Amino acid sequence: MVTTWPKNFPGLGTGAQRFADRITAMTEGRLVVQVFAAGELVPPFESFDAVSNGRVEMWHGAAYYWQGKSPAFSFFAAVPFGLLASEMNAWVYHGGGQELWDELSAGFNLKCMMCGNTGVQMGGWFNREISSLDDFQGLTYRMPGLGGEVLRRIGANAVALPGGEIYPALESGAIDGTEWVGPWNDLAFGFYKIAQYYYYPGFHEPGSALDCGINLDFWNSLSEADQAAITAAAQAEVSVMLAEFDARNADALRTLLDEHGVELKKFPNDILNAIGEASGAVVREVGEGGDDITRRVYESFMRARATSIAWTKIAHSAYADARLLPFSY
Amino acid sequence: MVTTWPKNFPGLGTGAQRFADRITAMTEGRLVVQVFAAGELVPPFESFDAVSNGRVEMWHGAAYYWQGKSPAFSFFAAVPFGLLASEMNAWVYHGGGQELWDELSAGFNLKCMMCGNTGVQMGGWFNREISSLDDFQGLTYRMPGLGGEVLRRIGANAVALPGGEIYPALESGAIDGTEWVGPWNDLAFGFYKIAQYYYYPGFHEPGSALDCGINLDFWNSLSEADQAAITAAAQAEVSVMLAEFDARNADALRTLLDEHGVELKKFPNDILNAIGEASGAVVREVGEGGDDITRRVYESFMRARATSIAWTKIAHSAYADARLLPFSY
Repeated sequence: MVTTWPKNFPGLGTGAQRFADRITAMTEGRLVVQVFAAGELVPPFESFDAVSNGRVEMWHGAAYYWQGKSPAFSFFAAVPFGLLASEMNAWVYHGGGQELWDELSAGFNLKCMMCGNTGVQMGGWFNREISSLDDFQGLTYRMPGLGGEVLRRIGANAVALPGGEIYPALESGAIDGTEWVGPWNDLAFGFYKIAQYYYYPGFHEPGSALDCGINLDFWNSLSEADQAAITAAAQAEVSVMLAEFDARNADALRTLLDEHGVELKKFPNDILNAIGEASGAVVREVGEGGDDITRRVYESFMRARATSIAWTKIAHSAYADARLLPFSY
Repeated sequence: MVTTWPKNFPGLGTGAQRFADRITAMTEGRLVVQVFAAGELVPPFESFDAVSNGRVEMWHGAAYYWQGKSPAFSFFAAVPFGLLASEMNAWVYHGGGQELWDELSAGFNLKCMMCGNTGVQMGGWFNREISSLDDFQGLTYRMPGLGGEVLRRIGANAVALPGGEIYPALESGAIDGTEWVGPWNDLAFGFYKIAQYYYYPGFHEPGSALDCGINLDFWNSLSEADQAAITAAAQAEVSVMLAEFDARNADALRTLLDEHGVELKKFPNDILNAIGEASGAVVREVGEGGDDITRRVYESFMRARATSIAWTKIAHSAYADARLLPFSY
């Protein structure tokens, strides 16, 4: 299994390793899954082709990395102002998402499935306050993918730096700010040493699903037991990886605030609304501008999004809000 | 595997069956899991003893059913104003919860693990509006368990009717209202025909984990592969069952509102605050009044709760709120 992560990178790489080890354990060694770090066997973004053409059997990555193959893949990872992790699960497992993903993937000789989730990410780090849309004009900000395109629409200069180049760029002033993942991974990178303000929410990746891609000929050659083992291991990772991000993010947020004096700030609503407007336009262009399968994925995603929003509001959000009332507990 | 549900009861019973079938498939029939409905082999609430003493190997149920064995079990299902599903997962998988559960369970010759989640439940059905705490005085309301005890503290007459007796009791006026699960299961019961107001949020069960209990001698006799298969199947069910509840609840909510004209209402904040105060007192009495393991479970749960609330607020809730701004998408 090739991956798009450094070996044992916290959360993503460790999750890939746990997924691999679990398959090996469950199949009593009929399938021995060996994990390769990004670049070890193939460059990370060539994982798709390597699995598609059968050079390797599996990858662990994220579906938006494959948007060059079809824009439809983005919807199975995360799009700006899209689905929360729980809503992704509802759509993919019980709302027709997996069936569309199977159809899309089969065209590339692949079987794909969710295999982890980061949960809601953070908006990111700034070395000055962001109080109006004017503050985004000409701001050089590290945000790759569709989120970066959204920031461009509101006037920012969005750039896509790889992880290792972010800290020196922020320190030297080559960029004015950056997003990365969330408190756990951001604390490890030490951004708090060179940027004071930590903004939320992360509109660009509200529940990024990781994916596992399997060569379809290889998948079809497996016994029902081995297919069931891979599927169970992937679905287990969806709950266990997200739980690890949530647990470590919660702890790291406290460390950032209590020990490092980071100033936690919410993006003002007028900025979020403008970002939402730009997000809607960008996602619509992706969905409606694509081929037949992309349009059908987009339409299915949009139906799931509309229905989910109403349920999340009265279930998860209303409960979480009520829990913030001043009662003692 | 005995269960506390009717055979294929939507969500809970179907999830138990999927869990069983998956273990059978993955182990190539080394373990053939046969599912028994509630009462078929043993009465549902005797599942704990039947597995503990080895008469059957496993149960699928919910840990608060075992609070008579130790009050500590409640914390591994749901307590009023406790943890959301995502927070339960963070605590149990990565916050020390499973280790405490193992210690607690071993005392009863059991190995227990999470095996599904219902997500946030609804506050329930009322045939008149609830606008102040006065409206709860003497109100006869169906809510079992700790949630019922909370309602008693604010003046209601809480009763614990089994599922099949609720509809006739509500229709005849023997009870003034009832909670059940959420839109999916509530729609099937038809409560909308006899009660007009549907209240949220469900403070009493914000993310009810289902559990699987396994006889510890049996568990210890299994190969590593079979233990890994059961564990993966249970963790998969945590994501897949919750996804099914979220998907079906979202659809059923729309049906209740658009087709059946149900009036959706949020409990007023002063009521929620009073319920929160009573919930804090009830949960504290359970946690602090118990034996050593119960106190340690309670303290671990309370630390996880405090840390989770801060993270959920800026991650999940802030994102979900921003998505409700008036931008077009």
